[in-house]
Amino acid sequence: MTSCQIPTVPEVHPALAGRFSPAAFDPHTIVTSAQLDTLLEAARRAPSAGNSQPWMFIAGHRGDDVHARLVPYLARSSSVWAPTASLLIVNLAHVLIEGTTDWEYSEFSRYDLGQAVAHMTIQGLTIGLDAHQFRAFDRAGIASEFGVPPHWEVTSMTAFGVAAHARGEVISPGTSQERADINEITWARA
Amino acid sequence: MTSCQIPTVPEVHPALAGRFSPAAFDPHTIVTSAQLDTLLEAARRAPSAGNSQPWMFIAGHRGDDVHARLVPYLARSSSVWAPTASLLIVNLAHVLIEGTTDWEYSEFSRYDLGQAVAHMTIQGLTIGLDAHQFRAFDRAGIASEFGVPPHWEVTSMTAFGVAAHARGEVISPGTSQERADINEITWARA
Repeated sequence: MTSCQIPTVPEVHPALAGRFSPAAFDPHTIVTSAQLDTLLEAARRAPSAGNSQPWMFIAGHRGDDVHARLVPYLARSSSVWAPTASLLIVNLAHVLIEGTTDWEYSEFSRYDLGQAVAHMTIQGLTIGLDAHQFRAFDRAGIASEFGVPPHWEVTSMTAFGVAAHARGEVISPGTSQERADINEITWARA
Repeated sequence: MTSCQIPTVPEVHPALAGRFSPAAFDPHTIVTSAQLDTLLEAARRAPSAGNSQPWMFIAGHRGDDVHARLVPYLARSSSVWAPTASLLIVNLAHVLIEGTTDWEYSEFSRYDLGQAVAHMTIQGLTIGLDAHQFRAFDRAGIASEFGVPPHWEVTSMTAFGVAAHARGEVISPGTSQERADINEITWARA
């Protein structure tokens, strides 16, 4: 019985290694409806506990009606940069209502939503779109504006577009953030 | 002022579109320590709320000491298939202890851990490794075995390796799971 050893590939894929959250987006880039479909398609195929798929999304292209309804709920900090992104997507997690038992996987809903959003943002990278996730907005306001029922939590928002620095306009500080090294995030290994 | 339109790319990246959670892994494939480094490196570079990086990992290669300490805590369901995977990684989320205030981002810790694990599993795909995440194991037992303090939650586990079906041994049912279509996961768009 022979062992099969996969060749050593120590490098992180360039799309993942080069990823950062832009501090500013090019205000002219347009993301098409077909590209939005692709982002949603990537999210939809993400894994989830028991295939529960505890995610929904609200998507507004810069200039459309949904976008216009989202922008007033941005916090002052995010209102500086997020509206110029090509696309704003609100990420919703299916959570349990206290006192009910209608949802088995609530414990994993945010974990699963995080995965779906990661799949969406990495899909974005493959079609040239950077992403910046944030929570600086009025969650209750957005839930009310879009009639989101209480068993769905307005969890986070993602701005998609092309980083302004990519067009030479702004240098993003996104890549300079301090990170723990892999030994610091490893509790145990042999 | 001209608009810049990114070419339409409606296809989901093949690595994401073809991804599935194998029901069985090839029991001979070896994942090297350098490949584990790459997986951890991808996780480490994932985004998180306020760059909080609320994740840690316990990693055991099939046959090593950490692996031997993990296997007894698998549930009956996962013990059938998970031990033959090349690598088991336990995913830990930094959570708030009730009554304390030492961690600002606990609300997002599972969301962020889900993203880090997604980055790790997608990195795995780029080096030929499939992944199957699961929760069918004794969390408290693993926390105790590895001395994990209570502000870290043993959240999930990922088995990495090469799907057995890829070597013609087993057809995985992973790809046949029913999924909502993108309209069903979109609460609002223009």
